[in-house]
Amino acid sequence: MTEPSKPGEPLRPLWWNADVRPHGALEMIDQTRLPGETRTITCTTLDAVWQAIKRLQVRGAPAIGVAAAYGVVVGLNEFEPTDDVWPDRLRQACEYLAKSRPTAVNLFWALDRMRNRAKKLRNLTWLEARDVLLKEAHAIRDEDAAMCHAIGVTGQHVIQDGYGVITHCNAGALATSEYGTALAVIYTAHQQGRKFHVFVDETRPLLQGARLTAWELKLAGVDATLICDNMAAVIMAQRKAHVVITGADRIAVNGDAANKIGTYGLAVLAAAHNIPFYVAAPSSTFDATLKNGSAIPIEHRDADEVRSVLGQRITLEDMPCYNPAFDVTPAHLISGIVTEKGMIYPVDEQAIRAMLRK
Amino acid sequence: MTEPSKPGEPLRPLWWNADVRPHGALEMIDQTRLPGETRTITCTTLDAVWQAIKRLQVRGAPAIGVAAAYGVVVGLNEFEPTDDVWPDRLRQACEYLAKSRPTAVNLFWALDRMRNRAKKLRNLTWLEARDVLLKEAHAIRDEDAAMCHAIGVTGQHVIQDGYGVITHCNAGALATSEYGTALAVIYTAHQQGRKFHVFVDETRPLLQGARLTAWELKLAGVDATLICDNMAAVIMAQRKAHVVITGADRIAVNGDAANKIGTYGLAVLAAAHNIPFYVAAPSSTFDATLKNGSAIPIEHRDADEVRSVLGQRITLEDMPCYNPAFDVTPAHLISGIVTEKGMIYPVDEQAIRAMLRK
Repeated sequence: MTEPSKPGEPLRPLWWNADVRPHGALEMIDQTRLPGETRTITCTTLDAVWQAIKRLQVRGAPAIGVAAAYGVVVGLNEFEPTDDVWPDRLRQACEYLAKSRPTAVNLFWALDRMRNRAKKLRNLTWLEARDVLLKEAHAIRDEDAAMCHAIGVTGQHVIQDGYGVITHCNAGALATSEYGTALAVIYTAHQQGRKFHVFVDETRPLLQGARLTAWELKLAGVDATLICDNMAAVIMAQRKAHVVITGADRIAVNGDAANKIGTYGLAVLAAAHNIPFYVAAPSSTFDATLKNGSAIPIEHRDADEVRSVLGQRITLEDMPCYNPAFDVTPAHLISGIVTEKGMIYPVDEQAIRAMLRK
Repeated sequence: MTEPSKPGEPLRPLWWNADVRPHGALEMIDQTRLPGETRTITCTTLDAVWQAIKRLQVRGAPAIGVAAAYGVVVGLNEFEPTDDVWPDRLRQACEYLAKSRPTAVNLFWALDRMRNRAKKLRNLTWLEARDVLLKEAHAIRDEDAAMCHAIGVTGQHVIQDGYGVITHCNAGALATSEYGTALAVIYTAHQQGRKFHVFVDETRPLLQGARLTAWELKLAGVDATLICDNMAAVIMAQRKAHVVITGADRIAVNGDAANKIGTYGLAVLAAAHNIPFYVAAPSSTFDATLKNGSAIPIEHRDADEVRSVLGQRITLEDMPCYNPAFDVTPAHLISGIVTEKGMIYPVDEQAIRAMLRK
């Protein structure tokens, strides 16, 4: 799929626009402007792609992977390298893009895949190689979309009629190629006609829940209520919530899962209230090199994100702030991991390795 | 104390200004403008006092009680009633002020005390009665200040050298006559030279932590870091926090405590991490008519407070939101209640009734 979504089509956060001269461009919805404004960014330089990832104009682990894959092609197109140096240019582009965000494993996974594909193309001209690599990026996108739909099918049974569902951050269409991960579960249950209600954590500091998930669910006609992050516990205590579903940015082989800051606390609260807590993620989110979550690098972002809300300062100008972008939820707090290959349950290394071998 | 704080004096959020013509006025710092602007509001009408409480220009259960006590005097002064109708005017003023915020028991406690004082004054002129009632309001203020200092002495030992302390909302000088409740514990430990670090929950939706607690602690020279509410769990998991201290707006006789939304979740998280959780509150916060927390009325505030941050919209214009101002932390999650009369421990009806009899 190489076009933005049209009415009746699924929402897509990024696409390849072949009409941009001379070589086409990666385009995306600028997610930092949502929900106030739906603005398209056109990336024709490697730096534009890097900045878009760094600034969260595109975010969500799977979408970052897709953006990085297209970013490699953008990098080749920008430099129009001679036929003998394009492999070097490609390597440099991959190294540069890998530094945009340290936690999302899909970023490295997509870059590795592009590099591996390129290895077999060394005898081609740069234009021939570029065309093959663009097809590879399209394939990554299409496979991601198919995975998301499969995740929805795997997980939809965890949402029953009359349920309250809590979700955190945005693990929706906007975080993937389309349909999402945690929200794929919600969309699939919704399409099956089940009646349920979603409580959307606003997700400070960057408010992905308030800005993106609220917008997506509204667009899809799913009943939803926005809450501040600190209200989830009361929703649980009042028995208004029956299940929690979030995405993940990186999962160790023992099942420890890194996701948006606040996810760990939500999992502890769910356990304390005997509410099942599910993580929905494609199998590319697993990092087989990591034995457990303590090895997952956590990105620490600028203190100004905490000091401000949408650019407006909320505290003292020089107030020290703590701003980890992610936290790690230990496997024992996760009821199941919803993947495109099936549900991982119980969440342990044996079940994860078995699923990854499928 | 009837004056605002001067350099070297404790911070005071409200005071009586006798110089305002013709009868004096209740003045307060407009807490909705902090920390950007320190603006004084002068209340010469009952409605101005009601609005100040409703709009959270003055907030925090003890400070609301003091404001209401002065508000009764403001009401008499505004209407300059004849000597035969002043008791009716006073009753009406109390009934009106009682409707400003439903959860803070100190509000009702202060109004009851003013009414009871007035009962013995029926044979006085309105001006004579007014002077006695103004003294009663001063006494409520001074007693509250003394209680806060005593709470600090009771609780200071729970903060040891090297500790990390999490607090929520603002239970500081700004929430009381001076010095605070939870922050009185922190100020007292600080004055005793102990080295510790405070993690301040920003406290959505109205950001009392980011705006008020951060400001107060900075003014007092206490080391502090601002965090988003959803980061407290990670601070605990990293063993950076050793104790949690919050205030309370109303406590049932079994120890169930209503406080700012988010407190309950923080208490659940503290229990899950084996971190002691203390509530600091004057004995006037206990409501002996309530057997447990389920009977505490919870104020639900406007959805726009969740939809917006400091007036800036963060989500869809018509997004449904949930906005309870308070939650109830069950007694079993509270390690101790720090009062001016001593520490209530264990937190149960027997210990509470024994303390209240002191």
